[in-house]
Amino acid sequence: MNESDYIKVFAPATVANVCCGFDVLGFALDQPGDEVWARKSDTPGVTISAIEGISGLSFNPEENVIGVVAQKIATALDVPFGIELQLRKGMPVGSGLGSSAASSAAAAYAVNELLGKPFTTEELVVFAMEGERVASGSAHADNVAPSLLGGFVLVRSYDPLDIVPLGVPVELYCTCVHPLVELKTSLARSILKKEVPMQKAIRQWGNLAALMAGLLKRDYNLISRSLHDEIFEPERAFLIPLFKQAKQAALDAGALGAGISGSGPSIFALSATEERAQQVKNAIEQVYASSGIELNTYVTQVPEQGARVIQQPSLHAHA
Amino acid sequence: MNESDYIKVFAPATVANVCCGFDVLGFALDQPGDEVWARKSDTPGVTISAIEGISGLSFNPEENVIGVVAQKIATALDVPFGIELQLRKGMPVGSGLGSSAASSAAAAYAVNELLGKPFTTEELVVFAMEGERVASGSAHADNVAPSLLGGFVLVRSYDPLDIVPLGVPVELYCTCVHPLVELKTSLARSILKKEVPMQKAIRQWGNLAALMAGLLKRDYNLISRSLHDEIFEPERAFLIPLFKQAKQAALDAGALGAGISGSGPSIFALSATEERAQQVKNAIEQVYASSGIELNTYVTQVPEQGARVIQQPSLHAHA
Repeated sequence: MNESDYIKVFAPATVANVCCGFDVLGFALDQPGDEVWARKSDTPGVTISAIEGISGLSFNPEENVIGVVAQKIATALDVPFGIELQLRKGMPVGSGLGSSAASSAAAAYAVNELLGKPFTTEELVVFAMEGERVASGSAHADNVAPSLLGGFVLVRSYDPLDIVPLGVPVELYCTCVHPLVELKTSLARSILKKEVPMQKAIRQWGNLAALMAGLLKRDYNLISRSLHDEIFEPERAFLIPLFKQAKQAALDAGALGAGISGSGPSIFALSATEERAQQVKNAIEQVYASSGIELNTYVTQVPEQGARVIQQPSLHAHA
Repeated sequence: MNESDYIKVFAPATVANVCCGFDVLGFALDQPGDEVWARKSDTPGVTISAIEGISGLSFNPEENVIGVVAQKIATALDVPFGIELQLRKGMPVGSGLGSSAASSAAAAYAVNELLGKPFTTEELVVFAMEGERVASGSAHADNVAPSLLGGFVLVRSYDPLDIVPLGVPVELYCTCVHPLVELKTSLARSILKKEVPMQKAIRQWGNLAALMAGLLKRDYNLISRSLHDEIFEPERAFLIPLFKQAKQAALDAGALGAGISGSGPSIFALSATEERAQQVKNAIEQVYASSGIELNTYVTQVPEQGARVIQQPSLHAHA
């Protein structure tokens, strides 16, 4: 047994709650992301044999999202052999960039490849969502769907599940800045109000409808005018140190728009060119320069592709 | 002076509050609609010399939407001559099909033509909105904008005003049924709640985002899945006799979706073909057949064009 026995899959980080698209719109990044390696095993059931790039995650397949996702698929297909998994985390948890979703998506994609692709990538969303259920208590799709499918993905409905991949109709670059402060997703969600003022809701869906039009009509100006969140950002911004200054710096540097990624603390900004996205990164870094807060920063194109095989098992592994 | 002195303009009826697109999305019909005739006059200011097709509307230009709109334009440009208008109503008021908006749009378009087109059609929206302010107490744009511009139009924002014309990306036919019962727009609006449950708001904007994607990606199936209104229709349906049965009949007959047009009482249904739209009309008429309620019914393509000149003044009129 060696490394080359495994099918190796990468699934990227994602930005959910894209300003006005709270809970329904997400998009993929090109990096960072997680790797899941998978191979058949003589040990029955799902086992996790290695976890790298992070400490403290459980090797128990019932408690680790990659195990949960793999078990769901194995159970659905009544797979007659064991599945051994390894997890290579390429991003920290709790960043707001869909860390658990990247692991879940990578696991679903890898196991599906291992089994000869019984499911389409779109059909894998529902399995990857089971990882989200374990990680956050709620089976959200707005990170796992873009991590699997790439580009922008709309979650129209959960009942029934209705995933609308938009792809990448317009070239966009994303700057992500992850201030290394702890923020629990559950806390960010707990301050959500149960009711929203009607006029704010109407402005929010007007912006979201316009954002969709801007993306699909390739209208950067309209995208920029639409990237607002009147409901959630005002309530959550205080959780992220220097958020307002960072957002303003991004806009001043020419970003089309900026907001909180997922439940934070990461901040994302969209730009029309890579050069602009780099300038936005520099501007945000400047804001945090004297704060004592460390940052992880990423500049990436919004890619057509989400989860993908990065290495097939070598031929002799099958021999 | 005779009829041929006038520039004659037609502006169509419109459907606003398109299911999940409450307050932000409207579309034009091909018919019915209103005509406004306009010519220069020696009498200073704006005068209304004839109103046909309806009784009870004021000839006072301060009280009639066409006069209000014409005066706003004349004042904005400091027009040095009088403007005489005639109104030919081609549709009843209080139908929920944007009757006052059709008059306002026709007036704005006609006066602009008379003055040599100082404004683009899009710039006329703000003037036509002044007619809506007089008619309903609120300067809404979701009827006047599609009446002027044709196709589907999104009102992203009022402050600043941001109108997004979508045109007609996909061929669609509309069945409109106007039950001749009285329903005050102000009553329909007064039952609007000030707050909306967060989960309903999220589902509403998920549907609206998907509707935009369906329209722009020409995906009839997605359009159909998205044409829902979880917030307003349930609260307003009781105001329209037999609404639920009519909507169900439309869906059973193969409509993509159906809902209340504007604030009602008209019902609209969208279909992918004209034949289907006719079948939907027949199905809804069947519902009302033994009710004793009279109907006006229309089957029309959603047209590329909104307000338009139907007759230029004859040459000798300028002599």
